[in-house]
Amino acid sequence: MANFGGHAIPGSFFLLLGFWLTVKYILQHYWRTSQPKGRQIMPPFYKRMHYLEGGCLIFGAFVGIMVEQFVVDGPHAHLYDTANHSWVKLMNWQHGTMYLFFGISGIAIVASTASKLVPVGVDRLSLSLALFVEGFLFYYHVHMRPPLDAHIHSLLLVAVFIGSASFMVEVFIKDNIVLELFGACMFILQGSWFYQIGFVLYPLRGPVWDLKMHDNIMFITMCFCWHLAVALLLVTCTSSFVWFTLKRFSEKGQDIEIGMRNTSSKTSSQKALLEESDEE
Amino acid sequence: MANFGGHAIPGSFFLLLGFWLTVKYILQHYWRTSQPKGRQIMPPFYKRMHYLEGGCLIFGAFVGIMVEQFVVDGPHAHLYDTANHSWVKLMNWQHGTMYLFFGISGIAIVASTASKLVPVGVDRLSLSLALFVEGFLFYYHVHMRPPLDAHIHSLLLVAVFIGSASFMVEVFIKDNIVLELFGACMFILQGSWFYQIGFVLYPLRGPVWDLKMHDNIMFITMCFCWHLAVALLLVTCTSSFVWFTLKRFSEKGQDIEIGMRNTSSKTSSQKALLEESDEE
Amino acid sequence: MANFGGHAIPGSFFLLLGFWLTVKYILQHYWRTSQPKGRQIMPPFYKRMHYLEGGCLIFGAFVGIMVEQFVVDGPHAHLYDTANHSWVKLMNWQHGTMYLFFGISGIAIVASTASKLVPVGVDRLSLSLALFVEGFLFYYHVHMRPPLDAHIHSLLLVAVFIGSASFMVEVFIKDNIVLELFGACMFILQGSWFYQIGFVLYPLRGPVWDLKMHDNIMFITMCFCWHLAVALLLVTCTSSFVWFTLKRFSEKGQDIEIGMRNTSSKTSSQKALLEESDEE
Amino acid sequence: MANFGGHAIPGSFFLLLGFWLTVKYILQHYWRTSQPKGRQIMPPFYKRMHYLEGGCLIFGAFVGIMVEQFVVDGPHAHLYDTANHSWVKLMNWQHGTMYLFFGISGIAIVASTASKLVPVGVDRLSLSLALFVEGFLFYYHVHMRPPLDAHIHSLLLVAVFIGSASFMVEVFIKDNIVLELFGACMFILQGSWFYQIGFVLYPLRGPVWDLKMHDNIMFITMCFCWHLAVALLLVTCTSSFVWFTLKRFSEKGQDIEIGMRNTSSKTSSQKALLEESDEE
Repeated sequence: MANFGGHAIPGSFFLLLGFWLTVKYILQHYWRTSQPKGRQIMPPFYKRMHYLEGGCLIFGAFVGIMVEQFVVDGPHAHLYDTANHSWVKLMNWQHGTMYLFFGISGIAIVASTASKLVPVGVDRLSLSLALFVEGFLFYYHVHMRPPLDAHIHSLLLVAVFIGSASFMVEVFIKDNIVLELFGACMFILQGSWFYQIGFVLYPLRGPVWDLKMHDNIMFITMCFCWHLAVALLLVTCTSSFVWFTLKRFSEKGQDIEIGMRNTSSKTSSQKALLEESDEE
Repeated sequence: MANFGGHAIPGSFFLLLGFWLTVKYILQHYWRTSQPKGRQIMPPFYKRMHYLEGGCLIFGAFVGIMVEQFVVDGPHAHLYDTANHSWVKLMNWQHGTMYLFFGISGIAIVASTASKLVPVGVDRLSLSLALFVEGFLFYYHVHMRPPLDAHIHSLLLVAVFIGSASFMVEVFIKDNIVLELFGACMFILQGSWFYQIGFVLYPLRGPVWDLKMHDNIMFITMCFCWHLAVALLLVTCTSSFVWFTLKRFSEKGQDIEIGMRNTSSKTSSQKALLEESDEE
Repeated sequence: MANFGGHAIPGSFFLLLGFWLTVKYILQHYWRTSQPKGRQIMPPFYKRMHYLEGGCLIFGAFVGIMVEQFVVDGPHAHLYDTANHSWVKLMNWQHGTMYLFFGISGIAIVASTASKLVPVGVDRLSLSLALFVEGFLFYYHVHMRPPLDAHIHSLLLVAVFIGSASFMVEVFIKDNIVLELFGACMFILQGSWFYQIGFVLYPLRGPVWDLKMHDNIMFITMCFCWHLAVALLLVTCTSSFVWFTLKRFSEKGQDIEIGMRNTSSKTSSQKALLEESDEE
Repeated sequence: MANFGGHAIPGSFFLLLGFWLTVKYILQHYWRTSQPKGRQIMPPFYKRMHYLEGGCLIFGAFVGIMVEQFVVDGPHAHLYDTANHSWVKLMNWQHGTMYLFFGISGIAIVASTASKLVPVGVDRLSLSLALFVEGFLFYYHVHMRPPLDAHIHSLLLVAVFIGSASFMVEVFIKDNIVLELFGACMFILQGSWFYQIGFVLYPLRGPVWDLKMHDNIMFITMCFCWHLAVALLLVTCTSSFVWFTLKRFSEKGQDIEIGMRNTSSKTSSQKALLEESDEE
């Protein structure tokens, strides 16, 4: 991970996850608000969406672990070097552990979509745990580094732990769109902050940052708030875009929602029109 | 900000905001309790009130940012001085960042008033975030200052973070008047504490405070509690005054509540009288 | 306060308050469970109980402040000595501030009993704030003392802040008897711990404690847990005693509950008998 | 406790408790979901289960305290040695205090099962307090030890305090299977981590661990996450096994659930079959 690419990959992953969650939550919210109260059975379209999400997490975690283990300078599945009485490449093992918990989270999503026996909330709990483990390992990562390096990583922890707390609350308070989008926002913030860490510690061009200068620490603190503002803006724009796209299509009576509406009746498009007019 | 005026301006702003929120919450509470359960549509008077609040926050944030940037010794929109390899006036940029989030909060209030599509609670979440960002930036502000200076600023953080937590809870627990007034009280406390900071660090007259004397720290800690007591008193008096004024006017059948009641029926003033007598 | 008596007085006060709250909560719980669901108007007996509680708090706070100010070596209402440029007896002022907030809490109890306009929960919020202020002032009290002295006071803070959090939660979760008794238990723990502090720092007889010995700190930590166990036992015994006394009297059809039952109908004693048999 | 056995005994106890809670919670959850809404009276089978649990906790706590007191090098009920002016075997007293609170928790479980007068939630509150006291005493245990020793014990505290918080939340949020299993999972994690502490500090074979090597601390941090993953796996497997065993037996109409179903009617096995087919 000790280069720009090593921070860009998790950054892109978390950015993608954040945007994906935003889109998913808006789709679910649209479905919830446009349904009469009685019906609570998720249409198959959403099931497929969840399978995709879970599958991607499992696949990503598996690939991540394999890559960390079997890159040229990786531990190649060796944990302890008995010859030298030392641990082998603990950094790679730690990253693998983080991936493992995101993989577990993927399994929980797939399981809770596939079977009703899995209690509601397990998927969010596992996501919260995955973030907690990530933050937990990072927390002990940070000691004994130059000030700016330690500071920029501890700011990452702010996003990670707030995200973890947010998903933990979702276990108890369900279907609260504000909370859901806030969780997605924390993922986007985390993703963009990974990029920022990459730019600061391994600048692609320009001079190297002075890791001990107090002004740099002050700027980075402020920069984190700017990232938060941008993340809020991105979530707002994405949600609005998805919402109004959904609305326009359902108003034209088009069949994009086949998977969502037609399961109940064939006249859903007319119904949808009526419901839209009621809402205004 | 390094003078008395620089602390009096935000102090006045937060005091005003605190009083305004007190009045607003009491108006809303009066309306909620004097309405039959069924009707939940906010009358236009409240909409206008929210537009005003949001507009003031946006305007104030904009002016604040502009002033911080373009005062005589401001950064004039320059962030990095490539000649000297140093950041330009980071203090002003940090204050601008704080204003930015109160501006975002204003936008959230306007948006959630204008459209029902914006989920309920976004306005409180954004206010909570604005306070969090303020506290977050101040937290890293405080290091490496003389003891009394650091202590008096960290007491400010107590008011800021408790306020932030209070508004965050409001996202989930709505229409709880105790919680709402507590949030307003934290704003008033913050405002009056800004004045206190100004008086201590930049005394208008009398001797300069000894920033290392332990007794001064002890007094300031106690003084913070006195400010809290005064803030509680001010919120109580303001609420009572607003409540009884509202009651007196509605008992006289006067038309102050045109915006609130007449939307439903023309005989609302008689109804109001009946409701009042029921309450006693 | 720097003697045994100075710790015994607040200790006795908090013990009394803890027992009183236990009795009050059990009385309220008995009334709640023995009532049909519909009726929710508190009988006058409870009102008088609350007035008494509030009155005692206000009176106690007033006496406390007066004593702290006008004892022989007190500040006699002088805060700043301009001749010596120093603060006058800040310790007494700090204690007075703590009393002030318990007085405010008493006012809140009286006000919320007297008028329905005062929102429900204000009394608990004010009690929570009183404990918070007490803990807050103690927290900055503790610095720069010998290890055992600092430790024994910081254990007091555990009871104070947990109590404060417990009453804060009560603002939102009402009529939960477990939570209410837990709050009362924290008061008893606090009271008995004040006595323990007195015994350790100002022993009535026997040798003075070594304030730097590590074993003493270990013992005191364990001792705090024993106090907690005793506090739990005391709350359990008191509640059981009050509950079964109430039950025996109401079974005999006696008139102890005149204030509680007869307000609704004259045949309440027979009703009570029926309800009791239902409960078994 | 300063040997492998001293860590294996509490480890086994917590592992057992964790598995037991998992089984109990799944049995309760099965019963809740397979019942029509109206009936809420616990069948006698569950009562007996709770008596067993409470009885074991009380018995275990009693034996534990006796052993700690009367082992060969124990304090034999002496607390203070007046001859040497020193405390006698404080470590044993501290462990006894921890057992005491688990015993209190057992009493609370028995009491709340035996009588409806004991308010719901007291059993969880007492379990939460037992964990809190355990963590509280451990916290002051850890100071002034070599880095790895302190670190490995502070990781134990993570499991202990998260478990305590989880059971505290259960006082307010009842019958949430995710929360209940999470609490059980924390017990399993705690149990397996006690074994890990034993293996690291008192290795049965192989070389002694270097308590100051930074890589060992890094490995142990990661190892804690692996224990968490294993604990999650164990809880999932146990729950699934118990659930499907219950389901298979109730489908065959066998009489394993005599204690659960036959209390209501003799045709419960047929009903069960119908309910199962409804669920699919």
